[in-house]
Amino acid sequence: MRAEIITIGDEILIGQIVDTNSAWLGQQLSVLGVEVVQISSVSDQRIAIVEALEAAQGRAELILITGGLGPTKDDITKHTLADYFGSRLERNDYVYSRLKAWFEQRGRVMSELNGRQADLPHNAEVLDNELGTAQGMLWRRGGKLILSMPGVPYEMKWIVKNQLIPLLQREFALPIILHRTIMTAGIVESMIAERIATIEAELPAHIKLAFLPRPGIVRLRLSATGPKRTILAKEVAVYEARITAELGHHVYGFDDQLFEAAIGEKLKVGGQQLALAESCTGGNIAQLLTSISGASAYFPGGVVSYSNEAKINMLGVRAETLADQGAVSEATVLEMVAGVREKFAAAYGIAVSGIAGPDGGTPEKPVGTVWIAVQGPSETWVRLYNFGTDRALNIERASMQALYLLWKMLVTN
Amino acid sequence: MRAEIITIGDEILIGQIVDTNSAWLGQQLSVLGVEVVQISSVSDQRIAIVEALEAAQGRAELILITGGLGPTKDDITKHTLADYFGSRLERNDYVYSRLKAWFEQRGRVMSELNGRQADLPHNAEVLDNELGTAQGMLWRRGGKLILSMPGVPYEMKWIVKNQLIPLLQREFALPIILHRTIMTAGIVESMIAERIATIEAELPAHIKLAFLPRPGIVRLRLSATGPKRTILAKEVAVYEARITAELGHHVYGFDDQLFEAAIGEKLKVGGQQLALAESCTGGNIAQLLTSISGASAYFPGGVVSYSNEAKINMLGVRAETLADQGAVSEATVLEMVAGVREKFAAAYGIAVSGIAGPDGGTPEKPVGTVWIAVQGPSETWVRLYNFGTDRALNIERASMQALYLLWKMLVTN
Repeated sequence: MRAEIITIGDEILIGQIVDTNSAWLGQQLSVLGVEVVQISSVSDQRIAIVEALEAAQGRAELILITGGLGPTKDDITKHTLADYFGSRLERNDYVYSRLKAWFEQRGRVMSELNGRQADLPHNAEVLDNELGTAQGMLWRRGGKLILSMPGVPYEMKWIVKNQLIPLLQREFALPIILHRTIMTAGIVESMIAERIATIEAELPAHIKLAFLPRPGIVRLRLSATGPKRTILAKEVAVYEARITAELGHHVYGFDDQLFEAAIGEKLKVGGQQLALAESCTGGNIAQLLTSISGASAYFPGGVVSYSNEAKINMLGVRAETLADQGAVSEATVLEMVAGVREKFAAAYGIAVSGIAGPDGGTPEKPVGTVWIAVQGPSETWVRLYNFGTDRALNIERASMQALYLLWKMLVTN
Repeated sequence: MRAEIITIGDEILIGQIVDTNSAWLGQQLSVLGVEVVQISSVSDQRIAIVEALEAAQGRAELILITGGLGPTKDDITKHTLADYFGSRLERNDYVYSRLKAWFEQRGRVMSELNGRQADLPHNAEVLDNELGTAQGMLWRRGGKLILSMPGVPYEMKWIVKNQLIPLLQREFALPIILHRTIMTAGIVESMIAERIATIEAELPAHIKLAFLPRPGIVRLRLSATGPKRTILAKEVAVYEARITAELGHHVYGFDDQLFEAAIGEKLKVGGQQLALAESCTGGNIAQLLTSISGASAYFPGGVVSYSNEAKINMLGVRAETLADQGAVSEATVLEMVAGVREKFAAAYGIAVSGIAGPDGGTPEKPVGTVWIAVQGPSETWVRLYNFGTDRALNIERASMQALYLLWKMLVTN
């Protein structure tokens, strides 16, 4: 099955937003064994939408359209598609009552404009959107599926996961592709490539390996195609085991598990708690940890100590240490980590202090300088890094590196 | 002038990388007054490239192609375009010597494969790429410009800035487009649409208004086209002033300013500090505030008090309050906000406590229940919300709503 993605919205064409929906859809579809042949972004204009839709039908059997479904008048996708497919817009009572309840639950009154989101093309199948007011609309024409979805990423993703993928799996004989992703932390792509070069060279032609890096993390995805899933699973398991053995503690999990979730599991199993003392990461590590449901089992909390006074008053860092060594120093992160473990009565602590930039650098401590301390019941590690000149990257890299050090301490102790 | 962007590469279609080149090109072109009519991403296949190029020539006068120019065999753009335009590949001695020098400067020997990057279509104008080995190649056909560039972002950007834009400005009378974006918080798209309906209806045909929502924020973009920039600026200013007056304190800034930056500015101007006591938002508000360079001027820090003990020990919440009212209660957030202001000696405080979910809800306090308290020198506001069932959304919405309440207090005091 071939698919084409059409994203609608002038904001994409003028570069006001980056189209991340298409990349996400591309990932989901290729995992299913659906080949994406083209992604097109077009403007909020009838002729542009219709032209793109016509062209797509010449190349693909599945056409996914996102965007242009808001209630305001610059969003014209629904009317354009309704006309194209010869639909009348009809008030869908079920959707209307769901929308009304949706607003009531949030203590809001549904406006006339919002109510119109329940006016839907009479000949489209409605794919419920539980997270928003714009529904998925599916047409079937000449063996092709055309699905229109809202452009809001979490709404679109919800519809794809809960409606589209089950429908495709139910109705189509998709090829058998087996994916297994090995999640690694604390090691860069080129280093992994060197260490597993022999294994990679021995992969049979029907098993592919892809390196998928994101900050602090490299995903290694094995994809096998063949006639029998059980055989593929056995074959992939062999290579998975070899790669995992080679990379050791850098492998923290599988199949897109989040690093912060793996760390949480490890702490939970050990019945241990972690407290955070964050300066330059500014709460980013806490935010990562608490993005995981159930984090309260192992995360009592932390202090974002942005000022020197906060370091002194909230963490017990000594004023002399700050005066003598500075806030970005080995001595300071050591006092921060000891202080936060004590304050939160936690077995493990992480402390980070650095210069995120772009300002605040000095010749001795340039932007990107970051000290990280990790302390457990029996060990203290402290490390100095320079992550570069970009503020957002510095925060992200420092956060991931701090979590990696904690992970290493947890698994090697 | 209309433009179309074609990005080439399977890695985009399978979602392995997000296409950020197109958004950047869209920004550059719209500032120039060039209208981007479509962005297409296609695979590394001759037929796909040629089809996209043919279609683009039917819609646009300027076609920008990125990607597929590496020296390896899966990069076929150069050969495909050369055939399409009836070109012979000829060794370009000037480019060859530049490439050789480029490698020498980097202490590397130029391989045979790299040397072939100097084999260029005889009928293309070469646009030098000073940052890499793949050159820009420009063809002119029937009044249309077709430019092929490498996909490496910094190389592509260099060619656009140093070669393409000067060429367009030299050769074409580009129209004038003026954009102005009004940033709003604490009000949903449909409510804005109702409140400014009259103003919107009175917009002249050459001024367009777009609603661009993101969580907690709606951007209103006015785009005006016409012969004179100064006249457009005056016209847009009139509608900007009317919309701003109608929406009052909901307008926090202009032209893609971040909400957390606007809040920071306001605090800085007032010489005041803000401290955070975060429970269910888990450090997310701190992370937003500290993403802004210079936040240390107004943000001394905060406490992520995930456990009851942390609320008691770090913020001075009374154990009886937690026992009687629970951690998610009006009484608790009031004690949290008073405690954090005192601990950090800050004029303003925000406290958030809620049930982010998906677990932990009860009939009285279902998932999504969030109490927010904001306290300033002369006022305390406390509010109860229910944001829904999705954990990530609850955290995001609670964070944005807390910042909005603070903003409202700052601007209405």
